[in-house]
Amino acid sequence: MDYRLYYSPGAASMAVHWMLIEMGIPFDVQLVDIDAGNQRNPDYLQLNPAGRVPTLVVDGAPRHESTALLMLLAERHPEAALAPVPGSADRAAWLELMIYLANTLLPAMRDWFYADVDGDPAGAAGVQALARRRIEEACDQLDAGLADGRDYLIGGKLSTADFLAVVIMRWTRNMPRPALGWPHLARYIRGLRALPSFIELNAREGLTEWRNQDD
Amino acid sequence: MDYRLYYSPGAASMAVHWMLIEMGIPFDVQLVDIDAGNQRNPDYLQLNPAGRVPTLVVDGAPRHESTALLMLLAERHPEAALAPVPGSADRAAWLELMIYLANTLLPAMRDWFYADVDGDPAGAAGVQALARRRIEEACDQLDAGLADGRDYLIGGKLSTADFLAVVIMRWTRNMPRPALGWPHLARYIRGLRALPSFIELNAREGLTEWRNQDD
Ligand SMILES: N[C@@H](CCC(=O)N[C@@H](CS)C(=O)NCC(=O)O)C(=O)O
Ligand SMILES: N[C@@H](CCC(=O)N[C@@H](CS)C(=O)NCC(=O)O)C(=O)O
Repeated sequence: MDYRLYYSPGAASMAVHWMLIEMGIPFDVQLVDIDAGNQRNPDYLQLNPAGRVPTLVVDGAPRHESTALLMLLAERHPEAALAPVPGSADRAAWLELMIYLANTLLPAMRDWFYADVDGDPAGAAGVQALARRRIEEACDQLDAGLADGRDYLIGGKLSTADFLAVVIMRWTRNMPRPALGWPHLARYIRGLRALPSFIELNAREGLTEWRNQDD
Repeated sequence: MDYRLYYSPGAASMAVHWMLIEMGIPFDVQLVDIDAGNQRNPDYLQLNPAGRVPTLVVDGAPRHESTALLMLLAERHPEAALAPVPGSADRAAWLELMIYLANTLLPAMRDWFYADVDGDPAGAAGVQALARRRIEEACDQLDAGLADGRDYLIGGKLSTADFLAVVIMRWTRNMPRPALGWPHLARYIRGLRALPSFIELNAREGLTEWRNQDD
């Protein structure tokens, strides 16, 4: 199996990058600097016509959508046990949570950060206000689900849902209500940030914010 | 296997209802009239705290998120062959498209129809304008993918992606640019609407708009 990840530090690619590191399998990376606009270079648009990161080239074919990539990697590498297996008790809850993160939090985050680029800047304030409301509602919901003291979102062990949720939570760090302000979420996030794979991920992406030693 | 679907005619539940009918397996249905506000009845909120349809009760446990339910049903019923099997050539494309529909089109549709309910009515026009742009861009993209004359989105055969896509396309029927205005999408939609399971679905949900005989 052959993987090349196109990533930008701290972007949606970070969840996939984290999973690849956690699995300990070989892969290549290629930096796409989105602050410099390199996601719109013609070469990259060939791989990803939407001009987004991540792209994961899987055995030669470019694949997109961070949530789908996490799910694909989980089923291609069952030995890593990063998703409940089909037919197991936690499978339905895992699928539901992956889709919830994908269709509630990810789009709201896109709205928060890109309202004026994706749409008419005149409407951006309204788009961002609704996005903020949805993100805070989702934090309420995740926090409630973690109130029983669990360390991982699904099945008592690390899964793709944790990679996706924690990377999204990281994006709230400069929002009006950062995720670390919810008590159970904060405990959960600190636990995940202590993983060696998360520490390694930050080092490889050159990120020095929102690590356990930073706040 | 024991299934009870809580649905409202023409809502996101329609994709799951369609799949259950297509599979020909036994299931119960329970109407939740969202025009009457019955999704906020205390009994229903116990099953679905967000007050949305669908809920699918699977062996006694309430499950949510239409996209996740389609994926769950596909893997619980491999004999129905409504998704490429793990490891097959079309699996990655199927996962990517399911997530794309879930995190691009479904949230934009929610914005289009619920901007003033989910958020501040003062910002609704901006939210809807961006939603419309994203929906039309997604129609462009789906249309381009169907330009090779294919009858189904993935793998040359009917899959969960078709149920989800066609139900979403139905919601565009009274929008400024209905999906039937894209040539390849129109051909695709007409093909899917001719399926006996789609005709039966409309009869069971009491829907008499947007069938092949209607337009
Ligand atoms: N739904 C996509 C979203 C990807 C996305 O929006 N990535 C952002 C960074 S987090 C990006 O590429 N932004 C650059 C741009 O849109 O120009 C996914 O989950 O992979
Ligand atoms: N992400 C959910 C969305 C469900 C949803 O928004 N359903 C709408 C009908 S299409 C609903 O229940 N509306 C009633 C309400 O929000 O009060 C899914 O795909 O199942």
